[in-house]
Amino acid sequence: MTLPSSDSPLRVGVAGLGTVGAALARLLLTRAQELSAEGARPLRLTAVSARDASKDRGFDASGLTFHANAADLARDPNVDLVVELIGGEDGAAKSVVEAALETGKPVITANKALLAAHGLQLAALAEKSSVPLLFEAAVAGGIPAIRALRDAVPGQKVTRVSGILNGTCNYILTRMENEGIAFDDVLADAQRLGYAEADPTFDVDGFDTAHKLAILTSLAFGTEIEASDMYVEGIRAITPDDMAAAAELGYRIKLLGVAQLTDTGIEQRVHPTMLPLDSTLAQINGVLNAVAIDTDLLGEIVLSGPGAGGDATAASVLADLQDLARGLEPKPLRLPRGTLRPYQKARMRAHEGGYYVRLSVVDKPGAFAAIAQRMAEHGISLQSIVQRRKPTDTGPHSHQPVIIITHETMELSVREAMDAIVADGHVNAAPQIIRIER
Amino acid sequence: MTLPSSDSPLRVGVAGLGTVGAALARLLLTRAQELSAEGARPLRLTAVSARDASKDRGFDASGLTFHANAADLARDPNVDLVVELIGGEDGAAKSVVEAALETGKPVITANKALLAAHGLQLAALAEKSSVPLLFEAAVAGGIPAIRALRDAVPGQKVTRVSGILNGTCNYILTRMENEGIAFDDVLADAQRLGYAEADPTFDVDGFDTAHKLAILTSLAFGTEIEASDMYVEGIRAITPDDMAAAAELGYRIKLLGVAQLTDTGIEQRVHPTMLPLDSTLAQINGVLNAVAIDTDLLGEIVLSGPGAGGDATAASVLADLQDLARGLEPKPLRLPRGTLRPYQKARMRAHEGGYYVRLSVVDKPGAFAAIAQRMAEHGISLQSIVQRRKPTDTGPHSHQPVIIITHETMELSVREAMDAIVADGHVNAAPQIIRIER
Repeated sequence: MTLPSSDSPLRVGVAGLGTVGAALARLLLTRAQELSAEGARPLRLTAVSARDASKDRGFDASGLTFHANAADLARDPNVDLVVELIGGEDGAAKSVVEAALETGKPVITANKALLAAHGLQLAALAEKSSVPLLFEAAVAGGIPAIRALRDAVPGQKVTRVSGILNGTCNYILTRMENEGIAFDDVLADAQRLGYAEADPTFDVDGFDTAHKLAILTSLAFGTEIEASDMYVEGIRAITPDDMAAAAELGYRIKLLGVAQLTDTGIEQRVHPTMLPLDSTLAQINGVLNAVAIDTDLLGEIVLSGPGAGGDATAASVLADLQDLARGLEPKPLRLPRGTLRPYQKARMRAHEGGYYVRLSVVDKPGAFAAIAQRMAEHGISLQSIVQRRKPTDTGPHSHQPVIIITHETMELSVREAMDAIVADGHVNAAPQIIRIER
Repeated sequence: MTLPSSDSPLRVGVAGLGTVGAALARLLLTRAQELSAEGARPLRLTAVSARDASKDRGFDASGLTFHANAADLARDPNVDLVVELIGGEDGAAKSVVEAALETGKPVITANKALLAAHGLQLAALAEKSSVPLLFEAAVAGGIPAIRALRDAVPGQKVTRVSGILNGTCNYILTRMENEGIAFDDVLADAQRLGYAEADPTFDVDGFDTAHKLAILTSLAFGTEIEASDMYVEGIRAITPDDMAAAAELGYRIKLLGVAQLTDTGIEQRVHPTMLPLDSTLAQINGVLNAVAIDTDLLGEIVLSGPGAGGDATAASVLADLQDLARGLEPKPLRLPRGTLRPYQKARMRAHEGGYYVRLSVVDKPGAFAAIAQRMAEHGISLQSIVQRRKPTDTGPHSHQPVIIITHETMELSVREAMDAIVADGHVNAAPQIIRIER
């Protein structure tokens, strides 16, 4: 690390003054006393960068150098380390991080998209310059999940890391469950309230969760980050019928990111799941996040808390800043870049687990038996099957929902059985399939 | 720190070879590879101490120096640091920790009783010798709660730390709830199964929770450890009637340790609580533990996982060992001993919160009205009051349970109202009072 180990202040430059950046600047300016620890260098905010210099962000910027160009902030001689809070996997965010690392300045970032896309390259760059690259705030906001994987499980074999990593999805699912209303309606309301973006794709289709999961996977299993080659399914297809069936069967629907060691490699998958109502993750409602870490020695530990928000995310940045002020130099991805193993993908079709299947069955004699027969042909053992006629669905073209819960089986078997049932003409809509997790 | 920063092995001595000590020794002997990290010194187990040298503990002790006297292990020139897993607040445990610190050797301990009683003195001793004293395993077993308080919340104001800290109590309460059976019956079964000690006082009367809470309080609020001057109430008085009432009202009964900042000081209290069924801590069942940390920036984060067990507790010791191998030197109690503020106790009678009260009311005309009147006289606002005659309780000397849930009120008011109700002769047993937490 190029920083002198002295009592001289560690001069902080903050790139990006959105909600998190402004909260961080306020905290650095008002909590100097609380942030100074014995044996640690004092922290001093010296420079910021943002598009608009004049906007009031709730702190006095008069003593700070303002850079219109973030990369200039990285090269500012009065900046010892850079906090990147711009966001986005390329552009200004990438430029400022690269410029800082190349200049031998430590970087703290909350940017999961950047790390998912370029984390390996940036880790190598940080190692080459012998400076830390820290990112506690990039995953699960204020929850110390990164440091748990980095510091708390040495010598253990991590077998699974999973989590509720996107507050927007969790908020939508919680409201769908509590109020019995449809996805589109909750989404519109969430957008109105500012809990969802105007273009919600990144959140509700699972990509944000995928980015965060890719980072956790690398730390958990000592593998290279691989965010583009994983199974990703969002929450748009979840219906009030699924919510009602879940409640009746003792489950709650959550969007999970799961990375799991299997015999054939690592499963990385993002999809809606049925969680038993009494599981810890099932209790994480609204905008909260949670991360579960399973190891051979611990069983499971779960960390939950705020996944977003200016102060909560800034708090994680403060913890990283404090680590740097104390002179810590953890490797960005826990292990040296050169020792990370390639990510070996387990095939999703080989995934094993329980399944929830909801079929819209055409009301013809024998349909029910034919469906059960197709499941049996594919070796799928059923835990329960519920056929319930809706009072309004009568007449020659009526259909009725059939809910099937399987015992543990293989994804491929379920897909093939569904293909056969669809081909048989017994259903009038695509089967809804939701994986069951514990 | 007196250890040379080199690649030479860090020679570990383990004092105490019970469940945790034996698990740790096995791990150190079999996971040298996994435990060695770049930039960290390798860990090597060189010496152990226990009462019985010959007992088979599942590892090959032939290459290790055996000390019958733990203090000798601390002075062994082939031991660089000591892990104390003997237990107990005095005796051999205290001797070996003191001997190690005085000799300038770092200490890792899982001994909450020792820390609760002598933590301040030992922290001062460690600082005097400039060696670390680490104790992640002393609170909540495998959960990284100590390092969360130490590393993850700098610059934040902690307002409350609470937790389910005793697995024996939580196991007993969970079985009482699930099976509807009495405390004594579950305790006897737990003793038979090895989940409770022959003398269960330490666990079920709340003292173990109090010790752990005292350590968390010091870290959370920067105060001196004070374990003897706190409100402690165990779980012996909880009845199946309370369990049934809790379930009906949407609560679950848990033994919590709570340390909370108030206007008049810090409340440290250990007692059964009614937790809303949908709260995160209410889901922590069986032998699991959990710690919740509330700060001004984060709101609440909750960490849950195994609170005991050989491997899980040894895993926390391994994390501390890894910190030492990397050359970290955190202050034992986060802040230097000399800057810890005295613990200013908030008076329990000034505690404010909701209350559950179960009264066994003598079946006389007007009793119900008189009770409600007494509550009103003491300014207690009632959220609900349920009077339900049991079918078997009839006749002139019959009585019936009355369950009262109060809105937020002051402990003193509840106590005075209860005294008045008892003095009025309307109840034939001491009132059951359980505080409601969120």
